Amino acid sequence: MNKLHKGWFTEFSPDDLEKMNGASDEEPTKVLKSDGQEMGGAWPGQAFSLQVKKVLFHEKSKYQDVLVFESTTYGNVLVLDGIVQATERDEFSYQEMLAHLPMFAHPDPKRVLIIGGGDGGILREVLKHESVEKVTMCEIDEMVIDVAKKFLPGMSCGFSHPKLDLFCGDGFEFLKNHKNEFDVIITDSSDPVGPAESLFGQSYYELLRDALKEDGILSSQGESVWLHLPLIAHLVAFNRKIFPAVTYAQSIVSTYPSGSMGYLICAKNANRDVTTPARTLTAEQIKALNLRFYNSEVHKAAFVLPQFVKNALE
Amino acid sequence: MNKLHKGWFTEFSPDDLEKMNGASDEEPTKVLKSDGQEMGGAWPGQAFSLQVKKVLFHEKSKYQDVLVFESTTYGNVLVLDGIVQATERDEFSYQEMLAHLPMFAHPDPKRVLIIGGGDGGILREVLKHESVEKVTMCEIDEMVIDVAKKFLPGMSCGFSHPKLDLFCGDGFEFLKNHKNEFDVIITDSSDPVGPAESLFGQSYYELLRDALKEDGILSSQGESVWLHLPLIAHLVAFNRKIFPAVTYAQSIVSTYPSGSMGYLICAKNANRDVTTPARTLTAEQIKALNLRFYNSEVHKAAFVLPQFVKNALE
Repeated sequence: MNKLHKGWFTEFSPDDLEKMNGASDEEPTKVLKSDGQEMGGAWPGQAFSLQVKKVLFHEKSKYQDVLVFESTTYGNVLVLDGIVQATERDEFSYQEMLAHLPMFAHPDPKRVLIIGGGDGGILREVLKHESVEKVTMCEIDEMVIDVAKKFLPGMSCGFSHPKLDLFCGDGFEFLKNHKNEFDVIITDSSDPVGPAESLFGQSYYELLRDALKEDGILSSQGESVWLHLPLIAHLVAFNRKIFPAVTYAQSIVSTYPSGSMGYLICAKNANRDVTTPARTLTAEQIKALNLRFYNSEVHKAAFVLPQFVKNALE
Repeated sequence: MNKLHKGWFTEFSPDDLEKMNGASDEEPTKVLKSDGQEMGGAWPGQAFSLQVKKVLFHEKSKYQDVLVFESTTYGNVLVLDGIVQATERDEFSYQEMLAHLPMFAHPDPKRVLIIGGGDGGILREVLKHESVEKVTMCEIDEMVIDVAKKFLPGMSCGFSHPKLDLFCGDGFEFLKNHKNEFDVIITDSSDPVGPAESLFGQSYYELLRDALKEDGILSSQGESVWLHLPLIAHLVAFNRKIFPAVTYAQSIVSTYPSGSMGYLICAKNANRDVTTPARTLTAEQIKALNLRFYNSEVHKAAFVLPQFVKNALE
């Protein structure tokens, strides 16, 4: 079975795909990891497909397989290592939540660091905040930025912005040289399979804490409550040793596996309640900022977790 | 292309499936409908697959194609006319929200009517409320009840309960003979393609209003904000002429198309605020009732809608 087959792209779980491509049914090796611990298969036994109108780009970068196709009903779609990262139709929900939960939880974010986020969607949202003086972005894979500029213009519109400092390199290494510098840090990574694996371990989060200012807030892609609860519980548990305030939010993103996405939001200041916006928005402001998913009520509601998630994280 | 193929079941949009099975690329006829109006294809250009361990049952009833299979990672799965209705792994999220939003919004629900719900999941949740004196259930397709009893024991456990009055027949016809009788009515229907089409029109909702007592509350399966926003806006708009209080809630359900599900909640009493539970639950009560998704905070948060949905429904 192929990922591209008879006019459809199918996103299988990495472990299922390995079984299909390999000769044996042995234990899969491509599983989600954190701190070297295996957190189970990614989403075995299920798959999501999008109908392909035209393949626009398909190459292997130094780090991963990069595919962009035009779909019949979701606009252009960015796929890394067989996993959908963004579609033009629903990307706003993920970008707005991952970016604005920490940004609006902060009273006055001036210096922002984005790790990953090569498609530019998080950058676009961060630049909506007038308080921002400089956005630093550290993306490991330049090819992702290049294809976003070419095929995802609505997402990559911020790459020419004068407030942007762009570095192509490893986020983990970058952080070692930056201490007490940022008001908000956003980790917009792919899953912990491949180049992003180091972004799901305790030592990475210790570097993030040190790179934040005293009132700094962190936001990280936090996987799906339906699929990755052990991994999420592990992330929350070790971060409670690193940050005085650790919270988890979730919202709907149609084309991610299981249709939901979580956000790990941590604050360095114990008195900062990130579940309530420090700055609320009027209807006029929402319109002016072209917010399609986020509003001040959505901010608070995102931290209300289904009972089974609450149980797992307590 | 088949729905069952090489060990996987794939849920295509009904219109895509018709195209694949037919010889032509003509306009599909299987689209979501309300009041005879076509509301667009169901979810063209996307598909969701589950890996099949074993097909347990596959027959055509008088009304629809009924399939039950054991999946590799989602337990047993009920499929009607090619659409996943419930999997043992995530069914609780849908059942608890569709049932408990109206049930806990009501201060003292004694008489409850379920229309559809042949798998028994809604019945199981309704029976958790001690105030309930009688549950009437009207399911059109007896075969659904029979396969649920056999293959979905965790969902169908309420069918032998002494408080249950079970009718096998058409919900629309049933309502014509019941006026001012129920505290809560729950419509647990499949999509408006096939036997459930009549349950998405204005005349159905007028019958529901008349069957409710003066302080009665209605809950209906309300489709997905990602896929069916025109249909949802239409349902909300015509119900505003029928009920003094019309609200919409949504939550995550992993195996429904796009991973989200909406709930249309209407009250006959203008002063009833259904977005706030009339009865709140303690942690002990949540445990005793075996609630895995619903709690009193989840109730309120479900009515907070993403901005694009808010815009569409205002």
